[in-house]
Amino acid sequence: MSIRERVTLLVGGVGGAKLALGLADVLPAGALTVIVNTADDFRHLGLHVSPDLDTVMYTLADMANPKRGWGIAGDSLKAMSLVERYGGPSWFSLGDTDLGTNIYRTALLDEGHTLTAITERFSKALGIEHTILPMTDDRVRTLIDTVDMGTLGFQDYFVRERWQPVVTGIRFEGAAEARPTEAVLQAMAESEVIILGPSNPLLSIDPILSVPGIRDASVASKAPVVGVSPIVNGQAIKGPAAKLMAELKLDVSPVGVLRHYDSLLDGFILDERDSALLDAVHNMGVQAAARQTVMQTRPDKVRLANEILDWIEGSDL
Amino acid sequence: MSIRERVTLLVGGVGGAKLALGLADVLPAGALTVIVNTADDFRHLGLHVSPDLDTVMYTLADMANPKRGWGIAGDSLKAMSLVERYGGPSWFSLGDTDLGTNIYRTALLDEGHTLTAITERFSKALGIEHTILPMTDDRVRTLIDTVDMGTLGFQDYFVRERWQPVVTGIRFEGAAEARPTEAVLQAMAESEVIILGPSNPLLSIDPILSVPGIRDASVASKAPVVGVSPIVNGQAIKGPAAKLMAELKLDVSPVGVLRHYDSLLDGFILDERDSALLDAVHNMGVQAAARQTVMQTRPDKVRLANEILDWIEGSDL
Repeated sequence: MSIRERVTLLVGGVGGAKLALGLADVLPAGALTVIVNTADDFRHLGLHVSPDLDTVMYTLADMANPKRGWGIAGDSLKAMSLVERYGGPSWFSLGDTDLGTNIYRTALLDEGHTLTAITERFSKALGIEHTILPMTDDRVRTLIDTVDMGTLGFQDYFVRERWQPVVTGIRFEGAAEARPTEAVLQAMAESEVIILGPSNPLLSIDPILSVPGIRDASVASKAPVVGVSPIVNGQAIKGPAAKLMAELKLDVSPVGVLRHYDSLLDGFILDERDSALLDAVHNMGVQAAARQTVMQTRPDKVRLANEILDWIEGSDL
Repeated sequence: MSIRERVTLLVGGVGGAKLALGLADVLPAGALTVIVNTADDFRHLGLHVSPDLDTVMYTLADMANPKRGWGIAGDSLKAMSLVERYGGPSWFSLGDTDLGTNIYRTALLDEGHTLTAITERFSKALGIEHTILPMTDDRVRTLIDTVDMGTLGFQDYFVRERWQPVVTGIRFEGAAEARPTEAVLQAMAESEVIILGPSNPLLSIDPILSVPGIRDASVASKAPVVGVSPIVNGQAIKGPAAKLMAELKLDVSPVGVLRHYDSLLDGFILDERDSALLDAVHNMGVQAAARQTVMQTRPDKVRLANEILDWIEGSDL
């Protein structure tokens, strides 16, 4: 079977969603399964918000806001403007169309439907021909320990405080008791390749791997596990990955990312600008290649997706 | 004290809100208290919807949709369109701006705030200089017994079935256990006049009077109780009042309305077109006057409000 027939991608939000879109474009319908971090999910104004799931879903449905990377293109903010006028919280913005997703998801969850089933229903309704899976239907919650503000919930850290507090630790509350879904385990078992997207290793990929069974399923799978570095030339393409890695005393480089994944990866794609590190990666027993990994346009995403798949097919992974 | 210093108005939605706006325009700031039916309130998609409260609030804030009489002028339907695309319910429409009210009210209720406190907060934020009070902070729910469809919730009867089922009875579930709020009792006790708006007697005014203590407070008040007929020339100005009265074997006329209120009223305003009934009303021991009661434009509302107040001031009520 060609690896292009069954690809599993693990991601968080914006950065990972870009590669998801590239892969969705180049793979045959149904060949891609995207397993998404849900440890950033939270209730806001009573609504169950799943930021990463929705970023991936809107991106694959070609509805995403191209500038911000999250939310829906052209969305308005009428509801939240009125909430603000009433003196309600304004730090977390939800667009009007986006509220349709959040309101109906919350209603369906409260009726007892699983997040997996709801995501499948919504994705199909939006015409997405691939599969988007939450990492678990259980409650896992990222908590951030900081120097000056104590422990913060993820959205408080990320959105309200704009990831400025200095971090001393990251925990995934509920992870030990969480179960991976059947759909996640089956996708990983049947995969021809498992790709860890260029998402934040600490905030997006780690929560997925913290769900008991998911890391083991990656290791046990016959499929090669290939990472794409989110660190390019010592910096994160977007967001707090580099800042966090430095605060947690990790080497802010593709090598630091690879080491953090602790022998999970069989292959690694790093950016051309880091090609000097290829030897160091090879010396760690991991096959690697350097590519132009920064994705701006849709052709960038398609090109990178093809280059990753081509490289895996041409390697002996 | 002039009656124009303390007026209490009991209403449901659209029809009553018109008179509320007229009174709000002609009375000094703070002089008007509108006590609103909440037996139509329900949860839709997890959101606590208060149709009559919001119609009154948006009307007094000059935000109401002038054509439909409910919802917000110029509102869009982005969120509900997406819910519909997901296969969700589409029979009850909530505009995007309106969702701000419904989402934040639900969140505040779930935090333990009362509907009275929330309505006060929202009204002030919208610049309303009079007082809007829900009839109770407890749960009262209108149930409609029908010939062909059994018992229906109010919104199922009114919106989903467009009030077409033939009705055999109307009940207010929870009314016996409900308590009027302190704010409602105080407003009625301090009132110089209590007006029953031209709202549906069976669906809008009866639920308010069904809350133990409210009817007694009307009777006990030193203020005259004055009704405005919602039936003009044998028809309802809007909605199912006439159809329901006929189905429940009531006389579809101002006299039927007056009789239904069962000696609660001291005075009664009926429409000019029904002035032939003035004698019959007088014979029931109730003072009455005929005025042009159909309100289309804002000047209509102001004129009727002034005419009602003038008539009460000139009478010996």
